[in-house]
Amino acid sequence: MRAAVLLEPGRIEMQERQVPRPAPGDVLIRVHAVGVCGSDAHYFRAGRIGEFVVEAPLILGHEAGGMIVAVGDGVSEERVGQRVSIEPQRPDPNSAESRRGHYNLCPHMRFFATPPVDGALCEYVTIGAAFAHPVPAAMSDEAAALCEPLSVGIAAIRKAAVGGGARVLVAGAGPIGVMVVQVASAYGATEIVVSDPDRHRREMACRFGATGTIDPGTDDLPASVDAFVDASGAPSAVAAGIAAVRPAGRVVLVGSGAPTMSLPVQRIQNRELILTGVFRYADTWPAAIALVASGRVDLDAMVTARYSLERTAEALESDRQPGNLKSIVEVAQQ
Amino acid sequence: MRAAVLLEPGRIEMQERQVPRPAPGDVLIRVHAVGVCGSDAHYFRAGRIGEFVVEAPLILGHEAGGMIVAVGDGVSEERVGQRVSIEPQRPDPNSAESRRGHYNLCPHMRFFATPPVDGALCEYVTIGAAFAHPVPAAMSDEAAALCEPLSVGIAAIRKAAVGGGARVLVAGAGPIGVMVVQVASAYGATEIVVSDPDRHRREMACRFGATGTIDPGTDDLPASVDAFVDASGAPSAVAAGIAAVRPAGRVVLVGSGAPTMSLPVQRIQNRELILTGVFRYADTWPAAIALVASGRVDLDAMVTARYSLERTAEALESDRQPGNLKSIVEVAQQ
Amino acid sequence: MRAAVLLEPGRIEMQERQVPRPAPGDVLIRVHAVGVCGSDAHYFRAGRIGEFVVEAPLILGHEAGGMIVAVGDGVSEERVGQRVSIEPQRPDPNSAESRRGHYNLCPHMRFFATPPVDGALCEYVTIGAAFAHPVPAAMSDEAAALCEPLSVGIAAIRKAAVGGGARVLVAGAGPIGVMVVQVASAYGATEIVVSDPDRHRREMACRFGATGTIDPGTDDLPASVDAFVDASGAPSAVAAGIAAVRPAGRVVLVGSGAPTMSLPVQRIQNRELILTGVFRYADTWPAAIALVASGRVDLDAMVTARYSLERTAEALESDRQPGNLKSIVEVAQQ
Amino acid sequence: MRAAVLLEPGRIEMQERQVPRPAPGDVLIRVHAVGVCGSDAHYFRAGRIGEFVVEAPLILGHEAGGMIVAVGDGVSEERVGQRVSIEPQRPDPNSAESRRGHYNLCPHMRFFATPPVDGALCEYVTIGAAFAHPVPAAMSDEAAALCEPLSVGIAAIRKAAVGGGARVLVAGAGPIGVMVVQVASAYGATEIVVSDPDRHRREMACRFGATGTIDPGTDDLPASVDAFVDASGAPSAVAAGIAAVRPAGRVVLVGSGAPTMSLPVQRIQNRELILTGVFRYADTWPAAIALVASGRVDLDAMVTARYSLERTAEALESDRQPGNLKSIVEVAQQ
Repeated sequence: MRAAVLLEPGRIEMQERQVPRPAPGDVLIRVHAVGVCGSDAHYFRAGRIGEFVVEAPLILGHEAGGMIVAVGDGVSEERVGQRVSIEPQRPDPNSAESRRGHYNLCPHMRFFATPPVDGALCEYVTIGAAFAHPVPAAMSDEAAALCEPLSVGIAAIRKAAVGGGARVLVAGAGPIGVMVVQVASAYGATEIVVSDPDRHRREMACRFGATGTIDPGTDDLPASVDAFVDASGAPSAVAAGIAAVRPAGRVVLVGSGAPTMSLPVQRIQNRELILTGVFRYADTWPAAIALVASGRVDLDAMVTARYSLERTAEALESDRQPGNLKSIVEVAQQ
Repeated sequence: MRAAVLLEPGRIEMQERQVPRPAPGDVLIRVHAVGVCGSDAHYFRAGRIGEFVVEAPLILGHEAGGMIVAVGDGVSEERVGQRVSIEPQRPDPNSAESRRGHYNLCPHMRFFATPPVDGALCEYVTIGAAFAHPVPAAMSDEAAALCEPLSVGIAAIRKAAVGGGARVLVAGAGPIGVMVVQVASAYGATEIVVSDPDRHRREMACRFGATGTIDPGTDDLPASVDAFVDASGAPSAVAAGIAAVRPAGRVVLVGSGAPTMSLPVQRIQNRELILTGVFRYADTWPAAIALVASGRVDLDAMVTARYSLERTAEALESDRQPGNLKSIVEVAQQ
Repeated sequence: MRAAVLLEPGRIEMQERQVPRPAPGDVLIRVHAVGVCGSDAHYFRAGRIGEFVVEAPLILGHEAGGMIVAVGDGVSEERVGQRVSIEPQRPDPNSAESRRGHYNLCPHMRFFATPPVDGALCEYVTIGAAFAHPVPAAMSDEAAALCEPLSVGIAAIRKAAVGGGARVLVAGAGPIGVMVVQVASAYGATEIVVSDPDRHRREMACRFGATGTIDPGTDDLPASVDAFVDASGAPSAVAAGIAAVRPAGRVVLVGSGAPTMSLPVQRIQNRELILTGVFRYADTWPAAIALVASGRVDLDAMVTARYSLERTAEALESDRQPGNLKSIVEVAQQ
Repeated sequence: MRAAVLLEPGRIEMQERQVPRPAPGDVLIRVHAVGVCGSDAHYFRAGRIGEFVVEAPLILGHEAGGMIVAVGDGVSEERVGQRVSIEPQRPDPNSAESRRGHYNLCPHMRFFATPPVDGALCEYVTIGAAFAHPVPAAMSDEAAALCEPLSVGIAAIRKAAVGGGARVLVAGAGPIGVMVVQVASAYGATEIVVSDPDRHRREMACRFGATGTIDPGTDDLPASVDAFVDASGAPSAVAAGIAAVRPAGRVVLVGSGAPTMSLPVQRIQNRELILTGVFRYADTWPAAIALVASGRVDLDAMVTARYSLERTAEALESDRQPGNLKSIVEVAQQ
């Protein structure tokens, strides 16, 4: 099969690889579409993210949709032919974290495109059968792929405890920020203010449900929001966002940034704010698929560019194009 | 002031009463619109609901919107002129229940139109200032009144833990059932099935967001819903609804019926279902107003008939009209 | 190996069986001690519990401690020689319920001594490696076995949301009731009232931490408890217990009884009680072992009779002995 | 009445003041015993804590027990003569925060000994009737006073979600740290490790239930604790404590320190830790009194020095005495 392989920072090469065989409990999926994520671009440019270093050729890509073409032992043959969205993680189901329902926190996790585990920018991948989620016929391959970043948004909004009538502040109007906006709206938030220094991105946020936007360089933040979700990773945005939260409100960190940040702990204490972070997701795919299928979240409209597998390097650079929100690598025709 | 007073079962008389004075901490409200609730109709017909017996002339009505026209000591004069939705309860804010955030469960509660406390079917009422919730200019008086039953729906959906992608079964497509449907939809539920034996009411439910309906006499219930909300009070509906809930799902009883019911406890145990009930509401008005103001819940469209204060008795009988969903008594012009 | 096999109601036969081989991911355990549970006695006498019918010879027993003597593929050899408490369940770790952290509710569960799955009243059993929980050297084999019913008590007290200073009512002073009392005390409950018609059992409850007891035939129940845990399965006890709970308090059903019960639903609604049930347990063993090892729960003192494997039938009848609380079948010497 | 009044940093003067009259809803309490808190000492020495500045003569002291000697309008005369523990806060019961059950976060709070509100180091104080909690006859005045810092410990352990078998790390073995240890133990924690650089304080912690101690200068912290509670306010302790928490575990900040701190946010995100703070308490007194009355928490043993009201300045300096844990000002004989 064809695979786009990262050899060293900045260098992707098309290689011919063996089609993997599905292990017992796994399915083999022909990949149709792969979304490009900021972390892919970061590995491409820098060869590492924090402690995770690319030390051997690596296939990037962890936002993927496709079709089951074969199954391993113990998986029903009836699954062959199903179009699926891939949940790109392989936790140990018997770890203490998995048993408590936090399988995303399993210390033995193997995750797509996190060194040394290969990702989905290739023609075929395998995954545990329960992590290949069937999608309705009407859902596009691109939307199937983007259920992955949507899941990050769902995980964030659940932790933010957003419900009907909630007031939410979101920092950062990149792809994850836009997902957070869409999910907040789907959960009933009626005030969703997005802060981003880039005017084009602020406009994008409005198209996907933001009820207001703010330029952090010049505008005041709202006061007393129920929840603040950081999708920027910027320390100044985090500090300002925390100051905007009402007593007993929530702060959810999604954006990745520096290992440490200076936080207004006295504010957190005096208001008994609840601060936490999102690390991937657990049990989000059924909700993600239902939200997209019902039209409450629009993933197709987020796609701003498409590339062939051979043009993966271009796709990985496309986040620097003005107006770019989400690029898709079209690996195969549906 | 004019007041529609229930003298005995079936007999309402217009009386002239003193305009009340606002006590310290209270506001005086000129009533504009009052929704008619099933419980009002029940008091009107039977003179009692369970242990609550109408033993003296009583003013009914607890769904009300109006305008603040005077304030008691300790309340800002600036509130005069505000249009408000009335939260018709007077808990003791220092009871153990109130201190824990469950002020609706306060044992010293005085509640509108619950004997011997008068309600809102009159020209002026008083309430604690914090229980008179300002509404936006664009919100109608009728919608302001109907924030009360909407609050019941919000209380139910919160307890049902409905979020994005949830599958919900609702029994009963009366006014409360329709509120539950609208709120479930606003909170992101993507499958909302309503069961009601009456075809007209099932159609009504669909107009307000139900994704499917069921005639309990002939159709099968869905399986493995995340939550079942009973707004029927019918023992057969409750038993069937409980059987439809997935493991660890929720059952919320809103409809009032018999003091006891035969419930499938083994099912509750074997699936670890969480069953609870809704008794009025606490801290729902801000969410209710935001949901209506944002257009996520439509209260105006629920009004199917209007009556003058003098025609209160007719309004109380109107629930037996085919196609009736919610009747409003228009007490004063806005 | 020797096994005590239930052939038909009332008839246990010692048989020679093959020692099982540990499948991949499993461990082979030499059984040391097995506690006798009410459900074992019920299968022994009636040949069924509800829908579960003994249709083929069955080995009973699901409260067991022993020592790992061999491991299957993928399990560290270092586990051989570990003394363990057995969590007697085999869920599918990839079911929706398991992924949410409710693996006890997995619809594909295979549970010890639930037809047609054999239990532990034999010399060797296998179980998933993560379900064989190492115990400290100082913990007896009997205590290791009784971590199973202790887990039921932990599951109940967690659902009852018991914390420091809580007031708890427990119906039923059998082995599960006593576990509930001990766990409630360990979690900081300061008032633990036990209701049981049997004076001897009431005295037993006091020895294990009850702060008061009640004879339901003659005494009044306490009022306004924070939580009521039913370990009796008696409809009258459940109805009376529910009436004793404060607004927003908890009701947890542990005892198994009839499929349906008449419950005071109006009370549940008017007080917004939260009613749920316990079906086995998930993620309780670490807490169980810690509570026993620290001396906060005393399991050894609960053992009132011991039998050899050959005397299994006597052990299964022993719950009818006056003063009996928990019988142990000693399968092998430690 | 006599009052110990702080005139300027370091200067306390005994003054004669009017005995206050109980307003409607209030009770008048003759003060028996007042605990000295670190915040009292800080106001005494520095004249301020953060934004709160002592600009006029102030009576310090917010840990107090006494006896009701008169009642305001609307309070039952039967309360006269009750011995009580004082919950030293006056929230607005109608604020949004109070209505949600977070009355401690009410923005209109008036709190004892927080400028410009006088505290309890005098002969008589008034408080809302619901904030004067009756104590059993067997409870000492000193213990009644110390229910206040105990409440801080309860608030912390609730937020830390400590239950049976929990593993807890506590930084700081001062009075609040010791309270946290006692409460963690009462809630069933079986491993309670306390970190403090002072050997005497570490020994103190062990006397009150710590199962192990650590000198942060030389010892390694435990790994994978369920919860970390900071009662030190030291940035290095907070950072180290956060690193010790298992995935999805809790971090609770109690100690007050700098307005901002550098926190390991990547760790918080990657492990989805839940970090929050404690600001006073809400609905803790019933639990506090029950825990003390039942002997699960020992407050009397924490008292290491006693002073008369005239010696208040000495009491406020006593925290610098070696071996000091908690000083009491004995205002009146019981």
